[in-house]
Amino acid sequence: MIVSDPNVAAAAEVADRYGARVAGNADEVCAADDVDAVIICSPTPLHADHVYEAAANGKAVLCEKPVASSYAEAVALEHRLAGIDARVMVGFNRRFDPSFAHARSTVEQGGVGVVEQVTVISRDPAAPPREYILGSGGIFKDMTIHDFDMVRFLLGDVESVFSTGQNLDPALADTEGFDAAVTVLRTSSGKIATITNSRHCAVGYDQRLEVFGTEGSIFVENVLPHAARVSNASVSQAQARYLDFFLERYREAYSVELAAFVSAVDGERPFSPSLEDGTAALRLAEAADESAHTGHTVVI
Amino acid sequence: MIVSDPNVAAAAEVADRYGARVAGNADEVCAADDVDAVIICSPTPLHADHVYEAAANGKAVLCEKPVASSYAEAVALEHRLAGIDARVMVGFNRRFDPSFAHARSTVEQGGVGVVEQVTVISRDPAAPPREYILGSGGIFKDMTIHDFDMVRFLLGDVESVFSTGQNLDPALADTEGFDAAVTVLRTSSGKIATITNSRHCAVGYDQRLEVFGTEGSIFVENVLPHAARVSNASVSQAQARYLDFFLERYREAYSVELAAFVSAVDGERPFSPSLEDGTAALRLAEAADESAHTGHTVVI
Amino acid sequence: MIVSDPNVAAAAEVADRYGARVAGNADEVCAADDVDAVIICSPTPLHADHVYEAAANGKAVLCEKPVASSYAEAVALEHRLAGIDARVMVGFNRRFDPSFAHARSTVEQGGVGVVEQVTVISRDPAAPPREYILGSGGIFKDMTIHDFDMVRFLLGDVESVFSTGQNLDPALADTEGFDAAVTVLRTSSGKIATITNSRHCAVGYDQRLEVFGTEGSIFVENVLPHAARVSNASVSQAQARYLDFFLERYREAYSVELAAFVSAVDGERPFSPSLEDGTAALRLAEAADESAHTGHTVVI
Amino acid sequence: MIVSDPNVAAAAEVADRYGARVAGNADEVCAADDVDAVIICSPTPLHADHVYEAAANGKAVLCEKPVASSYAEAVALEHRLAGIDARVMVGFNRRFDPSFAHARSTVEQGGVGVVEQVTVISRDPAAPPREYILGSGGIFKDMTIHDFDMVRFLLGDVESVFSTGQNLDPALADTEGFDAAVTVLRTSSGKIATITNSRHCAVGYDQRLEVFGTEGSIFVENVLPHAARVSNASVSQAQARYLDFFLERYREAYSVELAAFVSAVDGERPFSPSLEDGTAALRLAEAADESAHTGHTVVI
Repeated sequence: MIVSDPNVAAAAEVADRYGARVAGNADEVCAADDVDAVIICSPTPLHADHVYEAAANGKAVLCEKPVASSYAEAVALEHRLAGIDARVMVGFNRRFDPSFAHARSTVEQGGVGVVEQVTVISRDPAAPPREYILGSGGIFKDMTIHDFDMVRFLLGDVESVFSTGQNLDPALADTEGFDAAVTVLRTSSGKIATITNSRHCAVGYDQRLEVFGTEGSIFVENVLPHAARVSNASVSQAQARYLDFFLERYREAYSVELAAFVSAVDGERPFSPSLEDGTAALRLAEAADESAHTGHTVVI
Repeated sequence: MIVSDPNVAAAAEVADRYGARVAGNADEVCAADDVDAVIICSPTPLHADHVYEAAANGKAVLCEKPVASSYAEAVALEHRLAGIDARVMVGFNRRFDPSFAHARSTVEQGGVGVVEQVTVISRDPAAPPREYILGSGGIFKDMTIHDFDMVRFLLGDVESVFSTGQNLDPALADTEGFDAAVTVLRTSSGKIATITNSRHCAVGYDQRLEVFGTEGSIFVENVLPHAARVSNASVSQAQARYLDFFLERYREAYSVELAAFVSAVDGERPFSPSLEDGTAALRLAEAADESAHTGHTVVI
Repeated sequence: MIVSDPNVAAAAEVADRYGARVAGNADEVCAADDVDAVIICSPTPLHADHVYEAAANGKAVLCEKPVASSYAEAVALEHRLAGIDARVMVGFNRRFDPSFAHARSTVEQGGVGVVEQVTVISRDPAAPPREYILGSGGIFKDMTIHDFDMVRFLLGDVESVFSTGQNLDPALADTEGFDAAVTVLRTSSGKIATITNSRHCAVGYDQRLEVFGTEGSIFVENVLPHAARVSNASVSQAQARYLDFFLERYREAYSVELAAFVSAVDGERPFSPSLEDGTAALRLAEAADESAHTGHTVVI
Repeated sequence: MIVSDPNVAAAAEVADRYGARVAGNADEVCAADDVDAVIICSPTPLHADHVYEAAANGKAVLCEKPVASSYAEAVALEHRLAGIDARVMVGFNRRFDPSFAHARSTVEQGGVGVVEQVTVISRDPAAPPREYILGSGGIFKDMTIHDFDMVRFLLGDVESVFSTGQNLDPALADTEGFDAAVTVLRTSSGKIATITNSRHCAVGYDQRLEVFGTEGSIFVENVLPHAARVSNASVSQAQARYLDFFLERYREAYSVELAAFVSAVDGERPFSPSLEDGTAALRLAEAADESAHTGHTVVI
């Protein structure tokens, strides 16, 4: 096992904890004979090159989202990998969350009939630092991209995108990005998905979903840190704030995701979500950005 | 239509609102040729005589609970009515509440399998005035009697009673009654019901039920004044206090109860809950009181 | 009291029940000396004339929504009434629902901080007859108009509208209208509201709202017919279907609305929601229809 | 690290996984110089001897509940340990569950005012094998003992006990034990706790609590495997069955418990729940058994 990070001390600490060795750079990792699989958590601009290098060296790859800085870059990566039997999985961890996975399997088994409308609410507890936002590629590539993938996970390919962005936090006004947005997606078969995002939420990490079909609906509610409720002279049934933040909310999802990656490396399941899933989500992110600036629906 | 009340002005006001006339006393009501049915809301010590007089005059009767001051008095009333084709219904309004009625019909249709355990939580929002408490006959006859009837409504006849009382409010200590209690009832077939009472509850009028059976459970939750929930930096999903008090919580039950009484008068349904139901609940109230003073189970 | 309806027998029945007399037509009602206030429930194309006639005769008016067949007709009505001290209230009953009213007052009192996003889910249990749909003016004027008013009730005036419609039910395909739609509204201050509609919902009449603000959220959940929940070997906490349909769900709202109208007639509160509120909602309905056909945002 | 188990293969497997060695018997573990702390999971009749031997050898001890086969045996153990500075913790894992711990800390901080009534519902999903039941010491020592400890955790010492048992499952009738029971406990200050148990529950492992105080209530609800809810033409808000069984429901509690034990060994917190807590729970179990056979309240 090899750990590589520009922060050598951090790499050494992790390596020490798990009995791994430290590599000087990503090339070394990708070239190592005793490495079967590579997990890429580098900054987004490096993703495409790292994926290519690992795959070209015959390694299985799990790459963090987004898989590239732009749709064009992702498409270029697909082309570069054309002749290679690349085994690439993209880190859309929410597909592995027990609640979202249950919603998807319910839908697949016809539990809500024919799906017609999907509503995603996805809000972060608080905005990241300005520096992160400035380098994030914008709300759609950084944050909504998870929701784009969730919509594709449930509905398949999207045909058109409308989005409208908000600049709510004065402290972020000069970042020239949106810190909230509502996006409406349509599939070719006329299904509609609505995504409501915000960079802040006083109640915590607000992660909800509902899938409405001809025979019923399935909802994913927020996850709370414990099962206690309080009633007093002012309120009844009051529960705790939502789990905060993604490491807590999706702890089990990350664990299942890694196990799925290992299974894929062992040939027991496909590498899914795939590189193509990562590319498709980027395409939607760019379409949403375009729509939010023009006010028009963008056809994919 | 006739209204009678020692408070003549109050009687006149009600009579005026509904186009009724005022009678000087209950005898006059019971003797009136143009009266088919009598609703008795007099003080408890007068119930038995009023029921007898109305029934002896051939009137249908709806009597508020408890139907008499004591079990002995209720049994005596049954004996006095022995030769009369008495049509008497007792005002256990909760049987007519849509939620409790739904629980009962679910149970009857086998929705929870064979019933094994019943849990009743029944708390008033705040104690009534000392004077009322002193004349109330005690918590078991005044308050728990509704819960005894609910248990009989669900489980049928009870074989033994255990109860333990609490004196929680120092201001009521010298009333020599309990202002809270826990009562455990068993039927001959071994089913158990637990009733938890209190004369006060900061959250409002706490009226809950759960019926546990071999195949599932049915719960009746508290009713709230509206369907709004609040989430903020401290809590999520907070709802309003429970509806407070019985006139609000059981508004629909009272309306259904009166309609049921009218149907019974029209011969379309039996007079149920019956006088015997009223007597049986009184028997349990006295057994609970005895158990609470001895610490022993009382066999009925 | 006067009742008028082209169906004379129906008018007579209602008149008989409430001790009113029957009028041959609306003119007669509006001209009657002993009438202070008129409630207009005629077909939508007659609304504007009926409102004008009643107001011109000095009557207070409560008119069902939509207040006219088109935005142009509503504006024309406003012009016709310009010189008259018209007292007109429009029947947006949901403003009077205890849950929605509680949400609004919570928002007004700052309970969620500064409002940023509103999410409305509004689905009917089943589509009305084809004939009704063909004469309804389309989903936006017929159904979403309530939601447009709810958004204005919470956020004030709207600056732009985007909408996308669905034709889900093959049986309605040739009506050339939408039977589902998602609409996104923006105010001049950058707040966003999303409305998700459908003419059918297997679970019942789906009427929900959430208001997201800087300090928290308030949710209005569906109302259920009773407070019982069931748990068994397959599910836990299962509740009843949503109340179905508007007469049941908004029973209390209609009652409060009528009382509010009477108070307005008595000079104790303004006639609100006003004719202008009715006109503004129509404007949004027409903008949504335009957007749904062009794919572009329509600026008001 | 040493693992000892009469099933040598099982011991070897565990030892192998964690880099430990296998000991032939408990004596060897207790005598080992390189052992600081011992976790005792032997059959109940061996607990007292194993605790004594480990403590007498200066080891810190975490012993599974119940700490002895009988109250007398537990008291004898306390006497045997009198001269030794024993460091013993008893495995009442539920104290470490985040939900129950939150309830307790809320109570301690005055969140519900003065506590007056506690309601515990505790049901297993399905009865263990007959052989286990025959050797279990009965429902009160085997199952309710956790609930006795929970009541003591919340209310402190108990003064009197009433219990009534049920034999619901015909297949267990000849085990001469109860497979369900209701127990009512009182403290010297007049607080009451009610415990409702059953060896089976169709919905799963039913683990609930409510603490009622002068200023409000705190509830611990069941924990579900995911946050999805389903609505269809029959039900709304239906959730999954309760988590099933204790390894799943209390997974986090066991982890926190072990960490707490390690902290105690490190001198950072007391060994709590203590041996005395284990003894007190056994006392209540025996009192409940006596009460269930006599129908009388047993004073401690």
